[in-house]
Amino acid sequence: EGKKVIRLDVGNPDFPAPAAVVEAWQEALKGQKTHYTESRGIPELVGALRAYLKSKSHFDAKPDELVVTVGGRFAVYAAIATAVKEGESAMIIEPAWPAYKEQIEFVGGKAISVQTSLEDGWGPSPEKIEERIRPNTKAIVLNYPSNPTGKIVKPSLFREILEVANDHNLTVISDEVYDSYSFAPCPSILEGGAERFILTSSFSKTWSMTGFRVGYAVCDGRQTAEKIAMLASLMYTSVPEFIQYGAIKALESEEEATRNREQMRERIAIACRELDRIHGLKYYRPDGAMYVFPELREESFDSSGFADSLLNENAVSVIPGTGFGNYPRCFRISLGSPKEVIVEGIRRIGEKIA
Amino acid sequence: EGKKVIRLDVGNPDFPAPAAVVEAWQEALKGQKTHYTESRGIPELVGALRAYLKSKSHFDAKPDELVVTVGGRFAVYAAIATAVKEGESAMIIEPAWPAYKEQIEFVGGKAISVQTSLEDGWGPSPEKIEERIRPNTKAIVLNYPSNPTGKIVKPSLFREILEVANDHNLTVISDEVYDSYSFAPCPSILEGGAERFILTSSFSKTWSMTGFRVGYAVCDGRQTAEKIAMLASLMYTSVPEFIQYGAIKALESEEEATRNREQMRERIAIACRELDRIHGLKYYRPDGAMYVFPELREESFDSSGFADSLLNENAVSVIPGTGFGNYPRCFRISLGSPKEVIVEGIRRIGEKIA
Repeated sequence: EGKKVIRLDVGNPDFPAPAAVVEAWQEALKGQKTHYTESRGIPELVGALRAYLKSKSHFDAKPDELVVTVGGRFAVYAAIATAVKEGESAMIIEPAWPAYKEQIEFVGGKAISVQTSLEDGWGPSPEKIEERIRPNTKAIVLNYPSNPTGKIVKPSLFREILEVANDHNLTVISDEVYDSYSFAPCPSILEGGAERFILTSSFSKTWSMTGFRVGYAVCDGRQTAEKIAMLASLMYTSVPEFIQYGAIKALESEEEATRNREQMRERIAIACRELDRIHGLKYYRPDGAMYVFPELREESFDSSGFADSLLNENAVSVIPGTGFGNYPRCFRISLGSPKEVIVEGIRRIGEKIA
Repeated sequence: EGKKVIRLDVGNPDFPAPAAVVEAWQEALKGQKTHYTESRGIPELVGALRAYLKSKSHFDAKPDELVVTVGGRFAVYAAIATAVKEGESAMIIEPAWPAYKEQIEFVGGKAISVQTSLEDGWGPSPEKIEERIRPNTKAIVLNYPSNPTGKIVKPSLFREILEVANDHNLTVISDEVYDSYSFAPCPSILEGGAERFILTSSFSKTWSMTGFRVGYAVCDGRQTAEKIAMLASLMYTSVPEFIQYGAIKALESEEEATRNREQMRERIAIACRELDRIHGLKYYRPDGAMYVFPELREESFDSSGFADSLLNENAVSVIPGTGFGNYPRCFRISLGSPKEVIVEGIRRIGEKIA
């Protein structure tokens, strides 16, 4: 009907990219930095990332353990393709970003889901994880802060999961793309504890650079990184050269990272305040990331139909919980839009549910 | 020894990207065109590409038959992944860009090589192609103008090959990335004749945009294009948004495309003039592309050892023929560098061979 849609669906923060990054791109463009580069990234960016990881996580990555990729998504794909072969399996903790399962299945693997629930505060149980491991299970994908729940597991629970993974020789693929939007202590795979691991991350959220498609993988050794670089080389040669020059400046843009984080903290508070007014809706107050994943515990509630009707009748888009696993009574609200938009969107959700 | 290397190896033209493209990028950056887009490309670019293909090849692609990709390399990978399943096979005409074989093997297929030779002017024989087809052969990769030989097959031979492909239900993957560097009539898959086809191309050579990683695939129908878009979506979400806006302007940059083509024509003429002075070296005078692939017909000649020694002792880099198939007496000279550099490089090759 032509009404402007309030988009609470895409995981795309609306913040601008740091000015220094845009300037660096323009300089690099003028300087004709427009050619192929090393598949694992230009040495200047690899060096800057190493320094960044060292100062942030006290992790001393060797240059040949790090690969720059076209976005975090490719890093996750390459990590999965490296850890899981056809006929093998990998575990995911649901609700989860749908790419994990799709990518595991794409490489011919089986995705073993471990369910978590709102009642348990979306925390996975190490016992349940261990129970579901099979002899052909090769990897487990972790993602804290979590998309879609905003959960951050306690560091002690994170370590317990790593111990289970170690006991069964699993590679831990830790997707830490939301780590800068953490409002509780967030464990990182780089702090140690996993015998085999691949960290995946990107510049998309921290510096709001989704549209530039630049991410990275940090590996537990040279050989894994070489496999990932081989996939990059096979499929797309390299990340655009000038974008890599801009990415170096992002790593120095602490002010913007802090501003984005604080805005996201405020948006979470506002979203929760609005959600609290909606009778019957329950949710876990996010520890991080940029989503809320509420649940309406009514037998008749089907979030797919709800999302369709919300879009068609109320011009608000959300993603039904079935997109993240077997969660037909949940839906995901993304906080990528300004707070006034979030408030208006959640109010319409409230009117619809009432 | 610190001597500056004359690089005649990489397929990277040194021309600048069109000014209008760089301007459009800067505008798009200012306008915050820095977010995720449709996996198959923004509608404006898809529309511009359709108009471009229509005016160039009189081919009327439907919007859902076209996918924008991160570089031509990903288009080729996705085409191969779409046409060839594990345990199946695909044909390549050697000498060939090594990515074809690597990608076929990566998807679990077998690459069946059809050899061509300098004596036959690098022309493949349709009979030889037909002989080598097996029941599990699903595709054939063509690449005219050819990397590394510069060969363009006559349109009549091209059609004969397409007929063989049709008779055996093969998908023709036609990599036409060098088509703007054509100095003889160059047949295109878009002119018809193939029942199943995927065209792959990119902005890299025509407008010298290698470092921007933007290419595309044109498919014989919606379903193939959907599979390619699915791979793009699974692996990297989308090509950077602002790069897509710049690519629209490239399609309008006829002047730069013509300038690049004329410079390449001149470089080929100069390279041939210099090669003619080298006794014992034979080569096919390129009809197109940006390479010469000479052969030294001496029993003792090994182009790998030659390339190593040429780099170490004479500071000139070329790629040995074994990189493109079983061609140990050939090597590839790339014409991506200015003519003075090409002249000096070929003179050093001549001194070495003498």
